[in-house]
Amino acid sequence: MSPADADKSDKNGIEYFHIPDFTLAGGTTLKDVKIAYRSFNPTAPRTVLIPTCMGGRVNSMLNFTSGALRDYHVVVVAMIGNGESTSASNDPHFPSDYSLRYEDCVRAQFQLVTAHLHLSELEAVIGFSMGGQQAYYWAVMHGTGPQPFVRNVVVICGSAKTSGHNYAFIEGPISALETSSDYARGRYREMGVKPVQGLRAFGRAYAAWLTSAEWFRQELWTQFGARSLKEWLYPAEGEAPFEDWDAEDLLVLARMWQSGDVGSLVPAGDYRTALETVTARVLVMPSLTDQYFDAHDGEEEVKHLKKGVFAPIPTIWGHVAGGGANETDTKWVDGKIEEFLSGQ
Amino acid sequence: MSPADADKSDKNGIEYFHIPDFTLAGGTTLKDVKIAYRSFNPTAPRTVLIPTCMGGRVNSMLNFTSGALRDYHVVVVAMIGNGESTSASNDPHFPSDYSLRYEDCVRAQFQLVTAHLHLSELEAVIGFSMGGQQAYYWAVMHGTGPQPFVRNVVVICGSAKTSGHNYAFIEGPISALETSSDYARGRYREMGVKPVQGLRAFGRAYAAWLTSAEWFRQELWTQFGARSLKEWLYPAEGEAPFEDWDAEDLLVLARMWQSGDVGSLVPAGDYRTALETVTARVLVMPSLTDQYFDAHDGEEEVKHLKKGVFAPIPTIWGHVAGGGANETDTKWVDGKIEEFLSGQ
Repeated sequence: MSPADADKSDKNGIEYFHIPDFTLAGGTTLKDVKIAYRSFNPTAPRTVLIPTCMGGRVNSMLNFTSGALRDYHVVVVAMIGNGESTSASNDPHFPSDYSLRYEDCVRAQFQLVTAHLHLSELEAVIGFSMGGQQAYYWAVMHGTGPQPFVRNVVVICGSAKTSGHNYAFIEGPISALETSSDYARGRYREMGVKPVQGLRAFGRAYAAWLTSAEWFRQELWTQFGARSLKEWLYPAEGEAPFEDWDAEDLLVLARMWQSGDVGSLVPAGDYRTALETVTARVLVMPSLTDQYFDAHDGEEEVKHLKKGVFAPIPTIWGHVAGGGANETDTKWVDGKIEEFLSGQ
Repeated sequence: MSPADADKSDKNGIEYFHIPDFTLAGGTTLKDVKIAYRSFNPTAPRTVLIPTCMGGRVNSMLNFTSGALRDYHVVVVAMIGNGESTSASNDPHFPSDYSLRYEDCVRAQFQLVTAHLHLSELEAVIGFSMGGQQAYYWAVMHGTGPQPFVRNVVVICGSAKTSGHNYAFIEGPISALETSSDYARGRYREMGVKPVQGLRAFGRAYAAWLTSAEWFRQELWTQFGARSLKEWLYPAEGEAPFEDWDAEDLLVLARMWQSGDVGSLVPAGDYRTALETVTARVLVMPSLTDQYFDAHDGEEEVKHLKKGVFAPIPTIWGHVAGGGANETDTKWVDGKIEEFLSGQ
């Protein structure tokens, strides 16, 4: 679910970096892969990269440019598959076997940062949710050794390895969409149909997970303008979360999310071993009430990080606390990032 | 999800009580309503009633007859709608507007107990999950005054009012089933189709909610014979939870569950006011890790009960801890019931 209220179709300031040939971890070689991104404050000396989250677009992400990152060059980048960068919805050669992996996203982002933006280091990679998982992949792929390419990593409501519980949760929305009549087992495109009912069901199977029991107890859906819980679950036509997404893009991202495990990057195959190689500083910032990116997993992760800091968000907003859903938590997160980046 | 491993099609010992005319809260009058039940140890002087839960059948419920209730006459009764008592699947006149309510179930069960079994009191009503919600309706409808008809009520992983979070959770499985292609907007029956894909998607959208994050961390799906999480989410054909259910029966029950609120039984319309009228002793036994019947709601409930006892189950098995999913919790629950019933 997109964290901010920004217009998701806003193409303002978006640029595209093209990679002529790009081989995905699954084996497919794609021609002319495009990576959508936006640069803020490009003349600042230090650069921070922010990859998108599930349901996120370049211009809907929190970018902290009026807070903690006001003095940084901030690059918000669309992960492969999100519909802005190369994706199932815009490249007919995109693999249909859901084999996109986080390491593909990070390899393409590394090319953007080095070959295109000509940077020799990143001050930080900051990500929320699936963006947080990409940040962990950055840490293991480019945050090691005495002079790590990325010096600081901030993981907001993410994890180094997708837990079984998290995997099982996202299988619910996946099942609702895949089984829906208008998704038509993936034939919706050739039939010229937008699977609106399937996309709306995907959103409803997601809804109770986003926040927390206490959030529902306080009926905080009113803060999104809903007059009743039913209205929140069944918004007006065109206004449901994910309703403007391509179904196949959502499924590609959801399957990548399920496969998340930085352990796959090291011979031992264990995420803890992988984290132990990281020399970058890492701020691990789960939400105390997150129902699927469990804060306990973050506590375990910092035990295996050389320079890990654990700072859970004290909130009843669950997962979305880290994505800009309310001003209080956003300020808290912004403050922690500022403190972390200035404390080197 | 059915708590026990019993064969759900087991009709052993099931009897039927017939009500010639029965008007539901929604206004429909049904002819020849049948209530399925089973009596254990019928000559014992004191009787305990156990209504079924979501996904439960008379012979799949925990009945405690070899433990806490060994010296009681135990009557396990199928709630209206479950496929054994009068339901959408076996009565063509059953209302199609999902207007079945818990008070209908309890009114029919009261007739069974008084007009058919000729009892003038119940020692206890004990229920798990939706059965626990029925037990709360029993408490408010027949557990008041100086000599309440039901003397003791045990609510295991239930609640007096369905919380917003709980409501939103069950909307996920509902959406997966209702949107599925083989459910065909309810036309599956006239098409002669069993909506297997929709029913299996219903089960998958339910799966991550049943237990807890820690349960998944310990990979306890192995205790159900699954060799991987994927195998647990995608069991063999015919073996998925709810796959043997009628789709419309599931939807009728899920909508009744969402509407659960004993406040609807009193003029004030508030569940707390309703609980304050209860003179029966009530054992409130949520699971500490239940993701949808939140233990905090149970804590709040006992504040409004004259004779309420709060005894949360210390477990990582989440909701299903109260339904017989593992021996340790079942023993703990059984022990608490024995202690509670002997402590009068």
